[in-house]
Amino acid sequence: MTVDTQLPETTQTKETARIETFADGVFAIIITLMAFALRVPQQEELADGVTLLEVMASDWPSYLTFFVSFLTIGVMWINHHRMFASIKRTDHIFLLINVAFLFGVSIVPFSTALVAEYLQHREATTAMMVYNLVYILMALLFNAVWRYATWNNRLIEQTTNREIIEGIWRRYRFGPMLYVVPLLVAFIEPGASFFINLVLAVFWALPTSGEILRRSSAR
Amino acid sequence: MTVDTQLPETTQTKETARIETFADGVFAIIITLMAFALRVPQQEELADGVTLLEVMASDWPSYLTFFVSFLTIGVMWINHHRMFASIKRTDHIFLLINVAFLFGVSIVPFSTALVAEYLQHREATTAMMVYNLVYILMALLFNAVWRYATWNNRLIEQTTNREIIEGIWRRYRFGPMLYVVPLLVAFIEPGASFFINLVLAVFWALPTSGEILRRSSAR
Amino acid sequence: MTVDTQLPETTQTKETARIETFADGVFAIIITLMAFALRVPQQEELADGVTLLEVMASDWPSYLTFFVSFLTIGVMWINHHRMFASIKRTDHIFLLINVAFLFGVSIVPFSTALVAEYLQHREATTAMMVYNLVYILMALLFNAVWRYATWNNRLIEQTTNREIIEGIWRRYRFGPMLYVVPLLVAFIEPGASFFINLVLAVFWALPTSGEILRRSSAR
Amino acid sequence: MTVDTQLPETTQTKETARIETFADGVFAIIITLMAFALRVPQQEELADGVTLLEVMASDWPSYLTFFVSFLTIGVMWINHHRMFASIKRTDHIFLLINVAFLFGVSIVPFSTALVAEYLQHREATTAMMVYNLVYILMALLFNAVWRYATWNNRLIEQTTNREIIEGIWRRYRFGPMLYVVPLLVAFIEPGASFFINLVLAVFWALPTSGEILRRSSAR
Repeated sequence: MTVDTQLPETTQTKETARIETFADGVFAIIITLMAFALRVPQQEELADGVTLLEVMASDWPSYLTFFVSFLTIGVMWINHHRMFASIKRTDHIFLLINVAFLFGVSIVPFSTALVAEYLQHREATTAMMVYNLVYILMALLFNAVWRYATWNNRLIEQTTNREIIEGIWRRYRFGPMLYVVPLLVAFIEPGASFFINLVLAVFWALPTSGEILRRSSAR
Repeated sequence: MTVDTQLPETTQTKETARIETFADGVFAIIITLMAFALRVPQQEELADGVTLLEVMASDWPSYLTFFVSFLTIGVMWINHHRMFASIKRTDHIFLLINVAFLFGVSIVPFSTALVAEYLQHREATTAMMVYNLVYILMALLFNAVWRYATWNNRLIEQTTNREIIEGIWRRYRFGPMLYVVPLLVAFIEPGASFFINLVLAVFWALPTSGEILRRSSAR
Repeated sequence: MTVDTQLPETTQTKETARIETFADGVFAIIITLMAFALRVPQQEELADGVTLLEVMASDWPSYLTFFVSFLTIGVMWINHHRMFASIKRTDHIFLLINVAFLFGVSIVPFSTALVAEYLQHREATTAMMVYNLVYILMALLFNAVWRYATWNNRLIEQTTNREIIEGIWRRYRFGPMLYVVPLLVAFIEPGASFFINLVLAVFWALPTSGEILRRSSAR
Repeated sequence: MTVDTQLPETTQTKETARIETFADGVFAIIITLMAFALRVPQQEELADGVTLLEVMASDWPSYLTFFVSFLTIGVMWINHHRMFASIKRTDHIFLLINVAFLFGVSIVPFSTALVAEYLQHREATTAMMVYNLVYILMALLFNAVWRYATWNNRLIEQTTNREIIEGIWRRYRFGPMLYVVPLLVAFIEPGASFFINLVLAVFWALPTSGEILRRSSAR
């Protein structure tokens, strides 16, 4: 019944390490390949005295959507990282939740390319809708990772400070709801919806007040 | 004759770590790049009042095959992970079997793209045949990894519980045979064949009864 | 206030490990995918007795820009590696600086492809300008990583030799300014600008005098 | 003069770990992306009663070159792995040699695609020439990695058995010369040249007699 608990403690630490390696791989590839999707203007497009800078300037939605998605995924990597600093064990359900979360991460380049193609097009609303639905899915699964791991100290050290656990939860539990705002705004003004995504990405990047205090006191 | 056995124990642990890093890399790239193969509809396709949602809806085979392949590979990563929790040593033949297994994994995006292109086409049977042959190859090599490692405790700790080893073997030994079912069904009804693949992916994802019991008792 | 300092020391070491894994992933993907962008001449281009070697010879800007970017990024990986040998801790701001640095790295393939397309074209100046602006951004962020980590021994061991810290700083602080040279030269002679980039890549690759001495004394 | 030797031993172990992570990343990406380059026949090619199997059969050079390159790189990963089991330290020159070696690895997909495109074309000799030159470069740099590390026990433990070091050297020192054979044969019969590459890949995969004996005695 409790067969697997005979595995030595070190094996369980190793399992967490592999989730992190795998997640790091997925994050690194996603972040890198989005840059590869940036289009290099071909020489043929420069006929009739059009300059390269002009062609590149007209590609601004590609550059901007790449920047917002890079920031969002980069910050999500940082926060995934921070959560796993407290997670010490793993089980089958937890691995499944992580794979599902990485599924959400892996479709961000698709939704990003969709927005880059349609941000200035009559179908911008649909593109922004898909973009925000992907972020809502990702935020829900991100919370599921943390909630599953911390429930009754399931996968974390008993000694982990409740303050840290609650702090992370307080910070992210409204994540899915926050992305409902740009989802709804997309029906009225897709450009504004995209701007809210940019603001949210910056918001997740900000250090918490606890971090700022800690840094001050550590000096 | 027994020259290499003079290497310290820690070196052998390190070797296993590198197989896992390498496998994690391959799994992460495969899972991520399949998402990159998702096609973004171009603006030109939306002429004559066709909406973006309509074009995306007609791409459903791409999304569905991506989902099934993601799930299959994600779950295979989890199970690879679980096997390596018990594997402590490595040798040349074992490295070769792992490289062969990763060969199988690396052609899944090809067979997936084939099914996405032909699922609604008269050649759907051929596509599903290739898709399932790749899975049979993968399942055979997956079993070879475990069988080679556990034979006479070749690469595992002597102290590893036989229950765990036998449990993993019981679970996967019929894997190759299970994929023969959709292979044969493909000749009659390719759509049904694909549905069986979806069911099998969910089946591999389910926790074993042992895991459920363990979780209950651990609470 | 100093809540997080209750985390055990090992957890903080683990965090640094994940930055390195993530950075290694991004560097590995960038370096590899640039090679994938190398164009294979199609059979159709070989009509009228043109040989494959001739077509490949006319693609020299692709091969040369790939080589220079590979060298630059490879050497930057080596130096990133070297910096992290001394960095022992991490915090939120440091993670953000690293993500920003990897952002710079991830757009190198784009600027490289731009130069490959335009090096022999009237728009070569614009391409070289973008190429060098990306390198200046990367060099600034590379310095920011080191400056943030070493400021008041923020993230390094107190016992780390000041000589090493100052040596790395002396070597890289002029990096951003060095790339201003090819940036300006690009307005006069883009080809010369590219040649300076090649020289700079070789310069970063050279071992320092300290390393040469150390090697001599170690023999 | 001997400043850096003040770094603790553990830091140097960590450096080796990062070379391996980086190399594993490059190997994993190369091996995976070659599979992504496999072409999915489009529906348009199947007009006039041509079956999918017929179109795929005519793509055999793609599948075969992929298989040979996968085998060659997979086995090279195994052998890189084996070398690093004995390498304990690192220095700047060694990092550079490794980056150069990975440069060689990273252009294999390019030379592979070249052979896939031209194996049945009048320019097959040129394609096979490039393919084998890349392998000669790779083999030379592979030997350089080992030779630099083992010279006067520069980067290996003093206690490492000379038998192991010499065994690896004996096995690989003729590597570059072995690839001269298919290079020369390419000028007479490109198909035979490619067949020799297949044979060489299998040859590198074979375990050494020492390994077979060790396995026998360990049972």
